[in-house]
Amino acid sequence: MSVEIVSETKSHGGRQLVVKHASSATTTDMVFSIFLPPQAQTRDCPVLWYLSGLTCTHANVTEKGEYRAVCAEKGIIFVAPDTSPRGPEVPDDPDGLWDFGQGAGFYVDATEAPWATHFNMWTYLADELPALVAAEFPADRARQGITGHSMGGHGALTLALGLPGRFKSVSAFSPIVAPGQVPWGRKALNHYFGSDETAWRRHDTVAMIEDGARLDDLLVDIGDADPFLDTELKPELLEAACRDAGIPLTLRRQPGYDHSYYFISTFMADHVRWHAERLGT
Amino acid sequence: MSVEIVSETKSHGGRQLVVKHASSATTTDMVFSIFLPPQAQTRDCPVLWYLSGLTCTHANVTEKGEYRAVCAEKGIIFVAPDTSPRGPEVPDDPDGLWDFGQGAGFYVDATEAPWATHFNMWTYLADELPALVAAEFPADRARQGITGHSMGGHGALTLALGLPGRFKSVSAFSPIVAPGQVPWGRKALNHYFGSDETAWRRHDTVAMIEDGARLDDLLVDIGDADPFLDTELKPELLEAACRDAGIPLTLRRQPGYDHSYYFISTFMADHVRWHAERLGT
Repeated sequence: MSVEIVSETKSHGGRQLVVKHASSATTTDMVFSIFLPPQAQTRDCPVLWYLSGLTCTHANVTEKGEYRAVCAEKGIIFVAPDTSPRGPEVPDDPDGLWDFGQGAGFYVDATEAPWATHFNMWTYLADELPALVAAEFPADRARQGITGHSMGGHGALTLALGLPGRFKSVSAFSPIVAPGQVPWGRKALNHYFGSDETAWRRHDTVAMIEDGARLDDLLVDIGDADPFLDTELKPELLEAACRDAGIPLTLRRQPGYDHSYYFISTFMADHVRWHAERLGT
Repeated sequence: MSVEIVSETKSHGGRQLVVKHASSATTTDMVFSIFLPPQAQTRDCPVLWYLSGLTCTHANVTEKGEYRAVCAEKGIIFVAPDTSPRGPEVPDDPDGLWDFGQGAGFYVDATEAPWATHFNMWTYLADELPALVAAEFPADRARQGITGHSMGGHGALTLALGLPGRFKSVSAFSPIVAPGQVPWGRKALNHYFGSDETAWRRHDTVAMIEDGARLDDLLVDIGDADPFLDTELKPELLEAACRDAGIPLTLRRQPGYDHSYYFISTFMADHVRWHAERLGT
């Protein structure tokens, strides 16, 4: 594996990098950002993965997420991958919409044409990128946490449920928790997996919990002024599934907050501290 | 005066607004952002002005400045104006460059055609916008501080020096301190004021101090990896002027930091705390 350092900037005592590499999972170039806290100069550090939402690249949280101060304090590496393969060779939404295709990989390995060639974000995030990060940077693979926003909250939850033991800590901001039951998710899963909805259940947090997957515990923040609350997010479905499964869920409905990075940045430090406690740092 | 609230978003317990209004100083519409901390719901709060650098609008620091957490903690209103008038009727750099004209008002009232019609950022920031902010928001005009970055550091320093008693606290990130001696500044001042350099001295921090203007004290952070350090910023000129004038200057040369918001955001909390101490909050 070889990587290209697109940019490297000192910030909050550490180094904020943007990295480009050829991905075997997506057969495209992929870009991610990684913040190395000052502690990474002298020892391996735990890793917090942040998966972004629809339309985002690594750049949104890197510029607006306000995670560096607390990651520098706690000695945590923060990795922000892209949300899909991109490029002229990558198929996109047939109607030119923003909620599917490029920028909307939904963190799955697609099985249907024309998506299956490049849209393999599950393999990219479950296998390829963790191996690359561990090879190139001082990352402690035994101490990993995962979080994400909206579609990326869906990604964080499904990766954590689908890879038991991989992540010591899991949280989400405004996650899609039941893609099989909401418009964004049904559109994407139908394209990526076809119309047999049994295949969708392995990438649906609520269905995975119903089918027996478990987490030790879970922190979720969601704004009660989020315009997608009732149509796409439906946190009450996660609440019911966790209650029935005995998963300790801390769900905080934050009054007056919306779906934006003004919301995410407000609670980012809380989330990093939640992960830090569980990652032993 | 009437204002249009372009957007209002809850963040860090307060409200982040973007505001548009017709300006009599620039005879254009102007846009600024203002963060109202939670304390502003019940009382007037001190105001910290942040003036931005070349090419920036209010949006750069609003998205990337990481000031909201500490302003919410300290109860400080944070105002980020634009850097110039804008619009199709506003003249711009004759060569289409980024370092002059729109996005580069240098915080002066221009006297030369065609600039004098719209480029009146001094009057806008000394008179018009403070009056508007005090009329529309719970701002304590007796407790104001000012800071800024690069060209905006120049603006913060020259406004503080030129309006004695107005600001109880002054700081800057990577300021232009002697525009009359560096390429960015000489180009701008020559356009805005003409070639008689005596007129430039009222908008040149080092010259203003040489000519008798004073500050109680001053905090400046600057990265030693800033690519503009030796050509445009020349902090040694500020050091010498403050030493000769007896102005207590805290100049911190931050190792490895550049000119970007990755640098600014790292030290933003330090600056807000510096202002908070002097603003009595």
